[in-house]
Amino acid sequence: MDDERAVAQVLARYVRAVDHRDSAAMSALFVADAVAESYYNNGGTREKLAELTGAETIGKAVAGLMAPHPPRGWSHHTTHDHIIEVDGDEATLDAQFVVFSIQGHERPAEGWPVGASGAQGTITPIESGYYQPRLRRVDGAWRIFHHTILLDQPLVLPGG
Amino acid sequence: MDDERAVAQVLARYVRAVDHRDSAAMSALFVADAVAESYYNNGGTREKLAELTGAETIGKAVAGLMAPHPPRGWSHHTTHDHIIEVDGDEATLDAQFVVFSIQGHERPAEGWPVGASGAQGTITPIESGYYQPRLRRVDGAWRIFHHTILLDQPLVLPGG
Amino acid sequence: MDDERAVAQVLARYVRAVDHRDSAAMSALFVADAVAESYYNNGGTREKLAELTGAETIGKAVAGLMAPHPPRGWSHHTTHDHIIEVDGDEATLDAQFVVFSIQGHERPAEGWPVGASGAQGTITPIESGYYQPRLRRVDGAWRIFHHTILLDQPLVLPGG
Repeated sequence: MDDERAVAQVLARYVRAVDHRDSAAMSALFVADAVAESYYNNGGTREKLAELTGAETIGKAVAGLMAPHPPRGWSHHTTHDHIIEVDGDEATLDAQFVVFSIQGHERPAEGWPVGASGAQGTITPIESGYYQPRLRRVDGAWRIFHHTILLDQPLVLPGG
Repeated sequence: MDDERAVAQVLARYVRAVDHRDSAAMSALFVADAVAESYYNNGGTREKLAELTGAETIGKAVAGLMAPHPPRGWSHHTTHDHIIEVDGDEATLDAQFVVFSIQGHERPAEGWPVGASGAQGTITPIESGYYQPRLRRVDGAWRIFHHTILLDQPLVLPGG
Repeated sequence: MDDERAVAQVLARYVRAVDHRDSAAMSALFVADAVAESYYNNGGTREKLAELTGAETIGKAVAGLMAPHPPRGWSHHTTHDHIIEVDGDEATLDAQFVVFSIQGHERPAEGWPVGASGAQGTITPIESGYYQPRLRRVDGAWRIFHHTILLDQPLVLPGG
């Protein structure tokens, strides 16, 4: 596997970890003293939302700050159009992202309505922006040492 | 072309075959005795939807079980964030997917309404989940020998 | 970086240039005498929408024909499931695309409503189809010499 694909697969595992609310899997993608910053990117003007330090803290935030999926619910954090630059043992990745919120319908006790066909549920894009992680090769594996999230939308944090 | 990209392009041709309702093109991506399984992935609990055996049967199902596109209609089966592992002449791929249903508007006899601008139609995400094909290299070409579809939504089959 | 990824990254920079309305960045991806054609792909029957010649003209069209983003607005041109074929110093790329229009909500003067949580805005898929660029290696860099856009929807151009 070449370096660019190895770097891309770190992001593929990142989105799996988010969607599975898997803190341990997320932490494992970062170096111990990693920093993650998020911004509301208001027409090119960045407003800082949050900064987290440390792989364990970043991993916990995934499960601790994000609501669990409701019954028949799921999410897909999808990324697109990667620009990857590898320079020795460091690399940068710039990806577009779109988050889809999934809600499957519950089968009515009397069965699906006449005429119902195909997948029963709703799929709603709820967040988008850019992921811009910087990675370092450690013992042969790529890990994120600095992560930037640029969100297109203003964000209301829980309790905010 | 390296193995990982060759594997990814099998999936790229798979989604083209689905969207074009092209049974022959789909069959050609599978080995003769391939198996395809689909599940409703209800919050991590799998409920089996269907199992098909044989490249020809799998290919036919694409055109036979799926409704043809309506006038000015199309679909895009899109895949994201591939995790690919190649081990000699076998490979696994894990991809997120989102299916978009496209319906273009018909131009009114009196012309588009005043103020209309841009693309005229609707784009609706209707299905999502994970594709998890396993591939084997046969005479230098990668083909799927076992395919798993994990659907996020419960499914109502035609006539069901 | 292998040729296929280098080709894919040209398209990644293309969508960045569109979303940033950056004519100079777009022009730089094309050879001087490049041709770009767009079609409404009506159920497989192509109706020509436009043809542009020259890298500068193509780049200007991005900024000149596309409306600027409104306040708190953005777009994401996303591409999927690339099929790339490299033959010496020429290459073809076939990609699905979906364009998302982003509109962030404005924070009300009295603050976000009680119960608001997460990203505040709407994300709407507005265009889709296929990008089919043909590229040539020039002085070691891949550039587009012929670009085809197949749009799923009929298009109303500004003033049309």
